[in-house]
Amino acid sequence: MSELEQRNSQIILEFQPAGKRVQAFAGQTILEAAQGLDLFEDGINAPCGGQGLCGRCLVRLVQGELSPPTVLEEQRITGERLAAGYRLACQAKLAGFCKIEIPASSVIGRQQLQVDGNRPAFIPDCPSKRYSISGLRPASIRYPYSLWGQLIKGLEEQHGLTGIKVDLDVLRRIDPIVADESMAVTVFQNRIVDVGTPQAACEPLGLAVDLGTTKIAAFLMRLDTGEMLDSEGLLNPQIAFGEDLMSRLAYAIGDKKQVGQMAAAAAGGINELAAILANRQGVEVARISRAVIVANTAMHHLLLGLPVRQLAFSPYVPAAVLPVETMAERLGLNLGSQAQVYMMPPVGGFVGGDHVAMIQASGIAEADGIVLGIDIGTNTEIVLAVNGRMVSSCSCASGPAFEGAHISQGMRAVNGAISEVNFRQQGQEVLWRTIGNYPPIGLCGSGLIDLIAELHQAGVIAPNGRLNPAHCRVRTEEGQAPEFVVVERPASGCERDIVLTQKDIGEIQLAKAAIASGVSILLSTLGVELSAVDKVVIAGAFGSFLRLESAIAIGMLPDLPLERFTQVGNAAGVGACMTLVSDSERRRAESLAGKIEHLDLAVLPAFKREFAKALKFPCLR
Amino acid sequence: MSELEQRNSQIILEFQPAGKRVQAFAGQTILEAAQGLDLFEDGINAPCGGQGLCGRCLVRLVQGELSPPTVLEEQRITGERLAAGYRLACQAKLAGFCKIEIPASSVIGRQQLQVDGNRPAFIPDCPSKRYSISGLRPASIRYPYSLWGQLIKGLEEQHGLTGIKVDLDVLRRIDPIVADESMAVTVFQNRIVDVGTPQAACEPLGLAVDLGTTKIAAFLMRLDTGEMLDSEGLLNPQIAFGEDLMSRLAYAIGDKKQVGQMAAAAAGGINELAAILANRQGVEVARISRAVIVANTAMHHLLLGLPVRQLAFSPYVPAAVLPVETMAERLGLNLGSQAQVYMMPPVGGFVGGDHVAMIQASGIAEADGIVLGIDIGTNTEIVLAVNGRMVSSCSCASGPAFEGAHISQGMRAVNGAISEVNFRQQGQEVLWRTIGNYPPIGLCGSGLIDLIAELHQAGVIAPNGRLNPAHCRVRTEEGQAPEFVVVERPASGCERDIVLTQKDIGEIQLAKAAIASGVSILLSTLGVELSAVDKVVIAGAFGSFLRLESAIAIGMLPDLPLERFTQVGNAAGVGACMTLVSDSERRRAESLAGKIEHLDLAVLPAFKREFAKALKFPCLR
Repeated sequence: MSELEQRNSQIILEFQPAGKRVQAFAGQTILEAAQGLDLFEDGINAPCGGQGLCGRCLVRLVQGELSPPTVLEEQRITGERLAAGYRLACQAKLAGFCKIEIPASSVIGRQQLQVDGNRPAFIPDCPSKRYSISGLRPASIRYPYSLWGQLIKGLEEQHGLTGIKVDLDVLRRIDPIVADESMAVTVFQNRIVDVGTPQAACEPLGLAVDLGTTKIAAFLMRLDTGEMLDSEGLLNPQIAFGEDLMSRLAYAIGDKKQVGQMAAAAAGGINELAAILANRQGVEVARISRAVIVANTAMHHLLLGLPVRQLAFSPYVPAAVLPVETMAERLGLNLGSQAQVYMMPPVGGFVGGDHVAMIQASGIAEADGIVLGIDIGTNTEIVLAVNGRMVSSCSCASGPAFEGAHISQGMRAVNGAISEVNFRQQGQEVLWRTIGNYPPIGLCGSGLIDLIAELHQAGVIAPNGRLNPAHCRVRTEEGQAPEFVVVERPASGCERDIVLTQKDIGEIQLAKAAIASGVSILLSTLGVELSAVDKVVIAGAFGSFLRLESAIAIGMLPDLPLERFTQVGNAAGVGACMTLVSDSERRRAESLAGKIEHLDLAVLPAFKREFAKALKFPCLR
Repeated sequence: MSELEQRNSQIILEFQPAGKRVQAFAGQTILEAAQGLDLFEDGINAPCGGQGLCGRCLVRLVQGELSPPTVLEEQRITGERLAAGYRLACQAKLAGFCKIEIPASSVIGRQQLQVDGNRPAFIPDCPSKRYSISGLRPASIRYPYSLWGQLIKGLEEQHGLTGIKVDLDVLRRIDPIVADESMAVTVFQNRIVDVGTPQAACEPLGLAVDLGTTKIAAFLMRLDTGEMLDSEGLLNPQIAFGEDLMSRLAYAIGDKKQVGQMAAAAAGGINELAAILANRQGVEVARISRAVIVANTAMHHLLLGLPVRQLAFSPYVPAAVLPVETMAERLGLNLGSQAQVYMMPPVGGFVGGDHVAMIQASGIAEADGIVLGIDIGTNTEIVLAVNGRMVSSCSCASGPAFEGAHISQGMRAVNGAISEVNFRQQGQEVLWRTIGNYPPIGLCGSGLIDLIAELHQAGVIAPNGRLNPAHCRVRTEEGQAPEFVVVERPASGCERDIVLTQKDIGEIQLAKAAIASGVSILLSTLGVELSAVDKVVIAGAFGSFLRLESAIAIGMLPDLPLERFTQVGNAAGVGACMTLVSDSERRRAESLAGKIEHLDLAVLPAFKREFAKALKFPCLR
């Protein structure tokens, strides 16, 4: 069989333990074949975007045949494990029928996603209202008016509304013959978007979305009252194409089809959330007539299908920093057929509309004095507001380490993740707590930060991050760097010790330095002393779980009195909600977006020096 | 083979003389199978909508097998012709491979369609303009602005425009990296809809459409200058589903799929016209950013896919008499991806937006004195304006007879149609002229009216329409009604005499009575004497070809001095053009639509009496 024939021949691939089968082609990698699976259930983790660099997509061949191991696989998998059938899903290519086991550690889990944030007071003023019209009667020769003619007349005579039109899909869907004496209509701006009997629910609904690199949070809102009905979070399905911004941009630059795949993956995630929320509230997704989406610049471009080449290389220019409003269906979103989607404008570089929404919701722009805002996500955006002037930056990728990527036994904040750590007796004894109280299987971000803070305070790591090889829990296998044993195998929920390696400490150093150096440079650029900062706003879901003391202890957050800190949760999501139900909030957000100055850290001469300084333990001063 | 199996088995069907082959199913009628053909080339004429009533879809079986002749076929086809393989395409069902000949007389021909009208002076004020922006430069670290950022800034600084957005498809399509020092942008309302080099043509284009029951006229316009670039006409492809309004409504009521077929057929015709016009002008269809469509109520509803059941039965209520604006793609129109389509609002009953556009273009509303407007089409709309008060009615179907339907040797105004007739010696000699000077094969509307006027004036027909059997050209075959021989076989372009039957005269009587009784009732309803009418506006393409003297002679048009008549051509199309390029014209049209009173002739007690009176020859007085 020629290679071409082989590529065109179809193969069945079965994944264990779920037992799911997919159709694949000979020559595809296991990872490619798995991209058709429901990613939220049993997708394969591929933080590096399938480049063979991270070694996290480890799977095991149970039955069948695969291509011979690549050089990359031989580097990343021990001979023993290779012999046992372990392979990298991104490297091993299919040849015929295969049964593949995806170990729990390689599965993208359904994360416990905190999606809400603190909600400031504001008055909803979305132009969507519900009106009752009475006195309707069937058409006759002397009264030849359809339902629509009578409703338009009723809106004018009974509610004083003029110039009202009717959405085409409503005209198509609703029988124009009057059957009831009174009806309730939903008017959005100057259009009738829904009609029902007065008893039937037809409140206008909207969807606010915080489209993050790692997770998507969605909020179902009533447009007329501003009430939040429900919220839900989900991992961004684009994770299958790479964990960080740059991996995804690199994939999208590949070709037009890949741009479409990325856009469809993000839209699919939003559709899934809309369906979950609508189903849980017992409403039709089709009743959602408006959506607002906030996202960083890369997620914004990838959802809209905008060109990204110029965003992936210096000077990292967004295609457009304009607000975009379009029909939901043009983005592949399954909402109401005439639903409009508004995307908050990006600021510059990777600082996107989510940052605008965070500033909007947290009131940073209006606060007196000097305010530092830190929105910790996959990337961390930082804003320094000095009496109304706002300068914002986007850090290098910080989140992946806090979310467990690049950490040998790191994981997201799902069941079994160690989320808190306390030392007794200088770390001879390690106390820990896991999410859901399950046996520990790895470390999530808050646990990692606690652990490093304790290691530092106990003197187990030096200011440069080096582990003290003399500590009783530090072991050094021959030819390897030292590692700290957090939980020994008998107590763990997996068949191994849970350890923190020297390399893991280095990853956390890089991550905390990304944030700390960004803060330092913003302060020095605006000539502000750290001690002069009146308030520090910590936003983002991860920022809410964080123990501030530990984050300060490792130098990730600035060393200021705890009372100056506020943890506001997912402020970007709250900003999206405000913008959804209030047009004056939308105007305010656009005005904010135009005022925020963008500072590209990477181009500043001071950046490398500050970054190197921030790698050290302990504190950011 | 069971009937079900038979219906599911595929058959090849070949049409002669074109030699086109189509796939069909056993059990389909020939007419059903032919609906997949390109209707503009060689479709089968089916004025009655395939109900077996008109006998116009005569075809001949050349090879293969068909179902046995139905009772209807035995009634409509002579035994001799049946034996020769002649069948009705709407009745004969397929059983296996067939070769079918479509005689020229059963083919829907490409008509010479007059589409233009007299264009009044008005100033275009469509919010679409082209601007040049200079001073563009590539992005750099110190100047991190994409093309869009610079264009928006340029529009503000160089042209004073603020709040400009960019269409999503333009953002997607155009590389945001600046390559030229200056660019030209097309701004529509507050959105950039196109960008090009200053040399490249990117004038904003629009399409005005007069969607008639029988024909579609389209006009390609420049939106910025109001210049008409080109125009073209085409038969409405919905003709395959029935020639008149009621046949089509009956078909659409059938089921949802049939509504979709009808909408797709009309949209297909508009797309064809847009493609022809764009191709001829060397522009992309995608550059058309706005369309205006005017149509009678039925065509309006069938294109928009609105419910029509209530329109098909008394009191004939339109689903909506509102203006509808929607995305072109939602109507299946292939124009610019963000193109908006505006449909002029209907008035009431079958009086549609085309009537509003006719009044708008002909200035009837603003004219002094008493003005009668008659827009002759498949149906004829009549308006009587008395010092600004306007009352409009829609006649019964009048056009089909004038377009050759229901007339034994009637045809549309295509090559070979007799379009003018003059008698010598009381009709002993008949002079005629054909379109294109081809040998005569039938009679088109203007020829028919000339002929009847001459017959009446020569006394060959009595006031009740009866042919004088004693006239030398009137012959009566045994058991048949008399007929008048217009052209004898040797001089004709077909293998038969061209005759006018007694039944044909009856059809013309019905058609002219429809118009004449409408005029009478409007006059009496408003208490106006015919002689008080200051001006008669004759609109519609057919109305331009009409010899006024003949139409007055047969009592189709009122007997007023010729100098009071104006033939304005396709005024509805002109109104569509005005509305396309001028937003103040759009507001004017909407205001007119709201002022026009609709009078349903059929419900008036006087209607039947007036109609019966108007059947007589000669005059409407």
